[in-house]
Amino acid sequence: MSQAIDFYFDFSSPYGYLGSQRIDAIGEKHNCAVNWRPYLMGAVFKQLGTSPLVSQPVKGPYSRHDLMRSARLYGIDFNIPDPFPVHTVAACRAYYWVQDSAGDERAKQLAQALYRGYFIDNCNVGDAEVVVKTAAGLGLDGEAVAAALQDDAIKARLRTEVDAALEKGVFGAPFFIYGDERFWGCDRIDHLDKWLETGGW
Amino acid sequence: MSQAIDFYFDFSSPYGYLGSQRIDAIGEKHNCAVNWRPYLMGAVFKQLGTSPLVSQPVKGPYSRHDLMRSARLYGIDFNIPDPFPVHTVAACRAYYWVQDSAGDERAKQLAQALYRGYFIDNCNVGDAEVVVKTAAGLGLDGEAVAAALQDDAIKARLRTEVDAALEKGVFGAPFFIYGDERFWGCDRIDHLDKWLETGGW
Repeated sequence: MSQAIDFYFDFSSPYGYLGSQRIDAIGEKHNCAVNWRPYLMGAVFKQLGTSPLVSQPVKGPYSRHDLMRSARLYGIDFNIPDPFPVHTVAACRAYYWVQDSAGDERAKQLAQALYRGYFIDNCNVGDAEVVVKTAAGLGLDGEAVAAALQDDAIKARLRTEVDAALEKGVFGAPFFIYGDERFWGCDRIDHLDKWLETGGW
Repeated sequence: MSQAIDFYFDFSSPYGYLGSQRIDAIGEKHNCAVNWRPYLMGAVFKQLGTSPLVSQPVKGPYSRHDLMRSARLYGIDFNIPDPFPVHTVAACRAYYWVQDSAGDERAKQLAQALYRGYFIDNCNVGDAEVVVKTAAGLGLDGEAVAAALQDDAIKARLRTEVDAALEKGVFGAPFFIYGDERFWGCDRIDHLDKWLETGGW
């Protein structure tokens, strides 16, 4: 197994969702692990004084159209949820609690279920109860997850993850880091693929 | 000849330059004309309250790296010029004057020469004298171009072009419109290519 791909995303990011549907296949193709690293785009917006693309004038309507068109092109089930976007602190805390208590694979299953719930079934991933139910639906301990959402250690863990992401220059979703190389956006998955194939250029 | 592709760009946009190196081949492949339509991204920044990507914190350094990496991937000669970015009112006025007086093909030759001058040879395309010299180097009448830069009719022509672009929802460079379909960025040239191939999806 070669060096890993760090995959940064926000549970409320539709491009992050589209990226999540494609990145594991790239990792498998190159025998390269993919570390799923949810974080909070809100911290980026605060740092840079920006706002979600879909909420911006002119660019927002374009991006909604582009999202639907891109999803159809890639054959990915996708809808623009309502409400959208939402805050995903609870989803992130649950993810890291599951990762710490049950391992990477279970955490990824939760992330995938949350993404599917939000962008296919319109379940509000910003709602802590939805997060708990989604975890319980995977056979995880719902009560323990609910407790974890209020746990100071998990709160601190998430803050550390978000700070580390910003420290590494992550500013979007999806965002990929492989070694020292950073790739922003679904649009760069092809470049990352080529980078892994060639060793860089 | 089918419906045309409208290709919007700013002479100071490096992604616009990269797009300009790829879009004509897409048009030829599908027997589809490409209308080169320089405009002023400054009008977009003013409209949306935004700023050039390369000048933004965090995203700026990333984009400079991404530009160099993308240019190498596509085998396109490219450097980040200095000064950068610059205002390109003179370049745009010259373009539309040449288009009106000598036709589309000559105007495109001027656009290509200006882009090469700026992004390969580091000639400041924001400088009216550089624009005039570049036009003269193509066998165009330098004195007439210099006069056109101050011509009220050409000034109005450019304002009309910029207003029309904004009216159509253009907000980036490169930006492509084919029929009712809009594609933003070099990243969407592949989608546009597929759209032309399939008739849409």
